[in-house]
Amino acid sequence: MIVALAGGVGGAKLAFGLSRVLPPDQLSIIVNTGDDFEHLGLHIAPDLDTVMYTLAGLANPETGWGVVGESWAFMGAVERLGGPAWFRLGDQDMATHITRAEHLRAGQSLSQVTRALCQKLGIGCAVLPMSDDPVRTMVRTSGDTLAFQDYFVRLKCEPVVTGFAFHGAETARANADARAALSDPKLQAVLFCPSNPFVSIAPILAVPGLDKAFRAARVPKIAVSPIVGGAAVKGPAAKMMHELGLDVSALGVARHYRGLIDALVLDEADSVLAPQVEALGLRAPVMPTMMRNDEDRVRLARAVLDLARSWTSAS
Amino acid sequence: MIVALAGGVGGAKLAFGLSRVLPPDQLSIIVNTGDDFEHLGLHIAPDLDTVMYTLAGLANPETGWGVVGESWAFMGAVERLGGPAWFRLGDQDMATHITRAEHLRAGQSLSQVTRALCQKLGIGCAVLPMSDDPVRTMVRTSGDTLAFQDYFVRLKCEPVVTGFAFHGAETARANADARAALSDPKLQAVLFCPSNPFVSIAPILAVPGLDKAFRAARVPKIAVSPIVGGAAVKGPAAKMMHELGLDVSALGVARHYRGLIDALVLDEADSVLAPQVEALGLRAPVMPTMMRNDEDRVRLARAVLDLARSWTSAS
Repeated sequence: MIVALAGGVGGAKLAFGLSRVLPPDQLSIIVNTGDDFEHLGLHIAPDLDTVMYTLAGLANPETGWGVVGESWAFMGAVERLGGPAWFRLGDQDMATHITRAEHLRAGQSLSQVTRALCQKLGIGCAVLPMSDDPVRTMVRTSGDTLAFQDYFVRLKCEPVVTGFAFHGAETARANADARAALSDPKLQAVLFCPSNPFVSIAPILAVPGLDKAFRAARVPKIAVSPIVGGAAVKGPAAKMMHELGLDVSALGVARHYRGLIDALVLDEADSVLAPQVEALGLRAPVMPTMMRNDEDRVRLARAVLDLARSWTSAS
Repeated sequence: MIVALAGGVGGAKLAFGLSRVLPPDQLSIIVNTGDDFEHLGLHIAPDLDTVMYTLAGLANPETGWGVVGESWAFMGAVERLGGPAWFRLGDQDMATHITRAEHLRAGQSLSQVTRALCQKLGIGCAVLPMSDDPVRTMVRTSGDTLAFQDYFVRLKCEPVVTGFAFHGAETARANADARAALSDPKLQAVLFCPSNPFVSIAPILAVPGLDKAFRAARVPKIAVSPIVGGAAVKGPAAKMMHELGLDVSALGVARHYRGLIDALVLDEADSVLAPQVEALGLRAPVMPTMMRNDEDRVRLARAVLDLARSWTSAS
């Protein structure tokens, strides 16, 4: 049994690789819902959707989010009616939002709706929203404190970040399946996908029940660095690290994750940092981590799982 | 001041003509909402939308409903997710439903939302849902009693009709602007557009406040026959008349509307029926009523308005 923690694009890519390597009943992907928000009367869950679309082979390879071959007639008509256009909802994507909203209003939980959507999309592994309760990532900036999508989409990550808060996290109940997976005696490893440490991984562990189960798990805990060669593979992670006064490197990631993980997988471009990461008491395996295509994803997933197995059998 | 009562396609066509002939502040179109229903968590208002799209020049001329140049990516994705596909919602059309649903949930009335939508679509005249309260047309058949869209769309009007009920009508409050328009001292005529008498016009007059104001109005009341040459121009009106044991003709329409209207406009194809309609105590002007293009719509609107004015000035 493997548990992976994932946010959006980078997380979804490794999750895809894992889903092609592991039997469906041996993989649970706990997904950040701190990015979720209400928009046009719909519950939008960007990271859940990115993971689902990626696992289903429907993801748009160019944008990294949304559905491949997406069209925008809905959005054009929304603009014609004077509606908000800053957050783009594609025509196919809308089916997900409408279905989710309808079932949530009918009293289903986010977990139940996600399970049903995954089933329809032919996804066999468990895609688990971290909580059915609302947790909302807030971005503290040198100016206002911003709701995540305001910061991320509307303001294009321009404000200077000073910190984060996860509203609702303290009282949010952990997804029961996620907590159970982290406490499963058959658990072999917990993986942090190469997602943003601050706004993808941190919100998941801000849910007390998940944090507790995660810390109690006696298995290898392995993160794949989302920073390669001093830059984020995608998204604002590097910009955030810089603004928070952290070293913008895999070493900075290692310092940030210290105490949580046993190993940080470094890209070959960062092999020179391995000794410094190891000096922090972490393993620092080096391998190609860039996932440009499905083969890359499967290869990285296999390599990370091999590491976990080797450490488990050695201990 | 002119008030027109309208349902879907046929009604919208004459409404379009009227809107091109009359100053915007002298035309109020009272629209049937008995066809409205909740679908996928949205308030769908088919007749309001058909009237709005037609007045805005956005209507699909081939289907008679929906938006011209519509696409169906949303619908395809809904089907992929196992959602209901029997009621087709186009990608552009979805923007109307989402906007309406959002504002209704925010506490706006259907009238307020409709006004805002019309403003955005550049519609100057008043498009007035008959009531902000839910009225739901039920179709009694030889089998089950069916919600209107079940009968109309899902079952394609196949069940044999035995009658109708308008759930909620008795207690529904009339749209205040519609009632005011019918009671306006400057009112010159009330027109029944060539809409279905049973499921478009009847639900409007089933709202007590509108029925009362309509009956009290001392102006020419003129219907345009939706039955031409013994057939409905569009929709199930003729089939319904047959199943209800009525004469499937403009004469049958005249008998049905007797006591409500002063005149039934007959198409030239039905000129032979004029004496029989007149024998019922109704005027029976004859003119071309088929509206194949915008010119036809404007010409019919102008002709009906001329009749109303001539009768007003003569009285």
